[in-house]
Amino acid sequence: MNSAIRAAVRYGISEGMEVYGIECGYRGLINGYITRMDNRSVSGIIQKGGTILKTDRCPEFKEIEYQQKAVDVLAAYGIEGVIVIGGDGSFRGIQDMKTNFGYPFVGVPGTIDNDLAYTDFTLGFDTAVNTVLWAVNNLRDTMTSHERVCIVEVMGRKCGDIAIYGALAGGAEIMLVPEVQVDIAAISKKIIQNKIKGKKSDIIMLAEGVCDAEVLREELKKRTSISLRTVKLGHIQRGGTPTMADRVLGAKFAARAVDLLKQDKGGRVVGIKNNKIFDMEVGQALNTPRKLNKELYELVNKLSQ
Amino acid sequence: MNSAIRAAVRYGISEGMEVYGIECGYRGLINGYITRMDNRSVSGIIQKGGTILKTDRCPEFKEIEYQQKAVDVLAAYGIEGVIVIGGDGSFRGIQDMKTNFGYPFVGVPGTIDNDLAYTDFTLGFDTAVNTVLWAVNNLRDTMTSHERVCIVEVMGRKCGDIAIYGALAGGAEIMLVPEVQVDIAAISKKIIQNKIKGKKSDIIMLAEGVCDAEVLREELKKRTSISLRTVKLGHIQRGGTPTMADRVLGAKFAARAVDLLKQDKGGRVVGIKNNKIFDMEVGQALNTPRKLNKELYELVNKLSQ
Amino acid sequence: MNSAIRAAVRYGISEGMEVYGIECGYRGLINGYITRMDNRSVSGIIQKGGTILKTDRCPEFKEIEYQQKAVDVLAAYGIEGVIVIGGDGSFRGIQDMKTNFGYPFVGVPGTIDNDLAYTDFTLGFDTAVNTVLWAVNNLRDTMTSHERVCIVEVMGRKCGDIAIYGALAGGAEIMLVPEVQVDIAAISKKIIQNKIKGKKSDIIMLAEGVCDAEVLREELKKRTSISLRTVKLGHIQRGGTPTMADRVLGAKFAARAVDLLKQDKGGRVVGIKNNKIFDMEVGQALNTPRKLNKELYELVNKLSQ
Amino acid sequence: MNSAIRAAVRYGISEGMEVYGIECGYRGLINGYITRMDNRSVSGIIQKGGTILKTDRCPEFKEIEYQQKAVDVLAAYGIEGVIVIGGDGSFRGIQDMKTNFGYPFVGVPGTIDNDLAYTDFTLGFDTAVNTVLWAVNNLRDTMTSHERVCIVEVMGRKCGDIAIYGALAGGAEIMLVPEVQVDIAAISKKIIQNKIKGKKSDIIMLAEGVCDAEVLREELKKRTSISLRTVKLGHIQRGGTPTMADRVLGAKFAARAVDLLKQDKGGRVVGIKNNKIFDMEVGQALNTPRKLNKELYELVNKLSQ
Repeated sequence: MNSAIRAAVRYGISEGMEVYGIECGYRGLINGYITRMDNRSVSGIIQKGGTILKTDRCPEFKEIEYQQKAVDVLAAYGIEGVIVIGGDGSFRGIQDMKTNFGYPFVGVPGTIDNDLAYTDFTLGFDTAVNTVLWAVNNLRDTMTSHERVCIVEVMGRKCGDIAIYGALAGGAEIMLVPEVQVDIAAISKKIIQNKIKGKKSDIIMLAEGVCDAEVLREELKKRTSISLRTVKLGHIQRGGTPTMADRVLGAKFAARAVDLLKQDKGGRVVGIKNNKIFDMEVGQALNTPRKLNKELYELVNKLSQ
Repeated sequence: MNSAIRAAVRYGISEGMEVYGIECGYRGLINGYITRMDNRSVSGIIQKGGTILKTDRCPEFKEIEYQQKAVDVLAAYGIEGVIVIGGDGSFRGIQDMKTNFGYPFVGVPGTIDNDLAYTDFTLGFDTAVNTVLWAVNNLRDTMTSHERVCIVEVMGRKCGDIAIYGALAGGAEIMLVPEVQVDIAAISKKIIQNKIKGKKSDIIMLAEGVCDAEVLREELKKRTSISLRTVKLGHIQRGGTPTMADRVLGAKFAARAVDLLKQDKGGRVVGIKNNKIFDMEVGQALNTPRKLNKELYELVNKLSQ
Repeated sequence: MNSAIRAAVRYGISEGMEVYGIECGYRGLINGYITRMDNRSVSGIIQKGGTILKTDRCPEFKEIEYQQKAVDVLAAYGIEGVIVIGGDGSFRGIQDMKTNFGYPFVGVPGTIDNDLAYTDFTLGFDTAVNTVLWAVNNLRDTMTSHERVCIVEVMGRKCGDIAIYGALAGGAEIMLVPEVQVDIAAISKKIIQNKIKGKKSDIIMLAEGVCDAEVLREELKKRTSISLRTVKLGHIQRGGTPTMADRVLGAKFAARAVDLLKQDKGGRVVGIKNNKIFDMEVGQALNTPRKLNKELYELVNKLSQ
Repeated sequence: MNSAIRAAVRYGISEGMEVYGIECGYRGLINGYITRMDNRSVSGIIQKGGTILKTDRCPEFKEIEYQQKAVDVLAAYGIEGVIVIGGDGSFRGIQDMKTNFGYPFVGVPGTIDNDLAYTDFTLGFDTAVNTVLWAVNNLRDTMTSHERVCIVEVMGRKCGDIAIYGALAGGAEIMLVPEVQVDIAAISKKIIQNKIKGKKSDIIMLAEGVCDAEVLREELKKRTSISLRTVKLGHIQRGGTPTMADRVLGAKFAARAVDLLKQDKGGRVVGIKNNKIFDMEVGQALNTPRKLNKELYELVNKLSQ
């Protein structure tokens, strides 16, 4: 996200704007955690994980009196438009500011599990999957003993993209995602077959939205009598030096978001589709139905022989 | 590249083909360095840099008698089509095999400097730029002494993409690419201005096709009296564990290449444009004029304030 | 471990020995998984995690009839001495071979949790702690939201060294090791105090031998009403490219082990004490009482203010 | 170095001291770049490369009037003792402050090339060699084409330790250090022999103090007709996230340095010998003759078969 913050600040300034940083998300906005930013404020941050502006939850921002407070604070600072980096929840705030106050907020998709269907990729996804690959590399190194099957639980409550891309790039043998009904009998069979075929190790990439890794382990152990390891990558996936792709994407997203504010176009979110940056109305973005990347899903299965 | 090899083998087998590996490129083809491959031959290679099939140069493959020898060898093995991973030079061989013998070769773009204009990205580019970023991170850590300006020479004889993406994602202050005429006076001025502005460190990203880092250092020192460091990343950029993006791209490219051979379509190369895999006639691909990514180039300049 | 294997092979050959590799530990020995090795057999393995010779459990090696079988196999191959890389369990086999058959086995300490008290360091420990640090870096990046306390569960059933070194080098605020009685009230107090002091994030480094991370989380939540994250690093700690220190240590250990066999000194294990390689009788090594590194433990507490 | 700074601050405070940070070395001291530090000043720095206190050269500190100025500044701040992290040059300042003013300065050895003979290891050495190994890994991946011999030039003007440890841990075939007379005929012979033996790739680890990589390349090419690559790692070796060993060493060094100041023992430097922290008189430290680690040097040669 720091790449997007850096780009928003510098691109905004180069377009003649004054730029402010709001810390801790909507909570910080309501409470006036706002500071002026210049080109130097964002020096040396591009390689850092996390965000220099911090994040926080703010469930009360759903209520109109808190939104009103935000409008008042922004007016006091003379801020005429806001860029929000986040996911579903943050985007609803953008919509409310448009609907209730006609106040221009624009959104940049920043969720590591790539769960915003209107855009091909979200900020942080590339970094997260590369972190998953690092962990899979480590696991492969040592999967030479009895327990040759390992379940790797990765992020993704509703969207299995980390699991799919992680499985394709990590060479996982089996992959379970929330978008596809689990066929436990087929998985058990594949584990047994891989053992017979002489595969040295099996990695099962499991999106957290399917079930807990321990539950899957118990079930598979019962059916196959093979003992399995589990690894839950958890919050390790959230941090780490961002990859090139995420830094470039952050800069492009931010530049487009600044352009939107310059044209006073609020209530919109930016995204990338077919390798082109675009923007669309936030409500429409939120209503875009999630679809499984079927082609990639099937490619994983073909390649995991 | 190993991801593409793995995918070609397994996808090919899943499509009912027999698959062979040709080692050491065209030289190996002429000399019959050919072995049968099965699913197990490509186990545990996806995370490895380099290529398990090795590479070699073979300038004599331009001559028709060597091409004829290749055709004979392939006939002897009963091989009906060949997938070639490489750049310009390798692709000319594909064209010759089509024109002179009607023999189906298909090409996968595999050059780290992204210098094939017909495709948005080539295999290895994402990994190479991430390696450049790693080096830039290390350099930034220590640029706190007198010599605050550092020239980082990266690959790219005719194509400045590593320098452009590296500069954008690495937060470089200045960038020199072969596609744009160097304005040494402007660069000198920017270095001086950055010093006055209080910038802690300057990184100049230099594509090797522009000039040698030492030449630039001398010239800038003469004009600014500021001492500069140089770092030439050289062959370090070629290796390393491939990134997620390169592994996924390799798998997709290979699957398309197998599909082409299955349909007996030779003389074609695969590529990615607007995030979609496509294929085109090899001669047309080789004639696609190289263009600077102007938008990205200008974004770097705006963000390097 | 591959560094030790490479060194044993090449150093042995340079001393005029014939060298064989036994795969899968004692199980492989009993079953004759034995191949001749030359200098080329260990090319290109030094940077790989895991072991090219694989590992396996073999509880039946405690029984004399299986030990007898091992002796028979070794005699059939004309093998006059064996180097074993492992921990407690493997070392007991060395002792038995000495006591029951006078057969020279020597041991190299290879356990990632540094739980062999007779040596300052074991092979794999440096790599494992560096992996822990990598994970801690990632976690710190994102600990900017509500859940600012994170429990990181690391390996170490009886020995807290990964936790102690990881805490010192990772800047953890709190550390729990099996050698020291847990004072849950003191920990709760420290968490609250750190929050009051304005610490942005707390990391609790927990050795698995103390308790499960979830158990600790529940207990601390009950006492402090602060929500905590947990991350169990698990088998990720076992793999990964070995660090310089582990590769150098492996080479030194292996060279000494070869020297011992050359002098026909079996029933001994090698180690490092005060930065010097030494060897001692295996029984004595196994009886060395484990001691907490008190100085380091207290330094962590002083530095975690 | 940040680990040592963090430890000095927190350990000092825990011992009841007031702690100040002096930026930019002796130059900053003379110019009063001094700020009060508390436990929070050193939060979140342990994983960062470089130093938060910056460095600078200050050749004029050799002159007594500048030393007098330093004494005056320190007196004005009420600072009673100073910890200096650095090498030869910085240590001479410590000696002068003792001899000329009886002012207590203590030294922590911080040079990446391990060139201080009185201590087994200096701060930064472990990190630097691990960075070298990373580069060697990348190079090995791609050394499959014609140019199979690569010269890697690493730091070390007078001390070849980076080259020796890098060669041992990186599996280099040949190693050139300033402590040993180069036998160019023997090296040429070994390159040819390795080619004949079928070695896939040769890495020559060259300490910069021996000669420039280009000079060696020319000479070897003339003698062997084999084309060689060169890579100069340069300043990349200086940065990067510090390893566990360096962080732990930094903390231990700093704690001992604080203890010395507490006892008002100036003119001393800390070090590590046989894995034990010790301190000694600075003049004696500077006069300790440098010795080649012969055992390790020979081990490299034995293992590079």
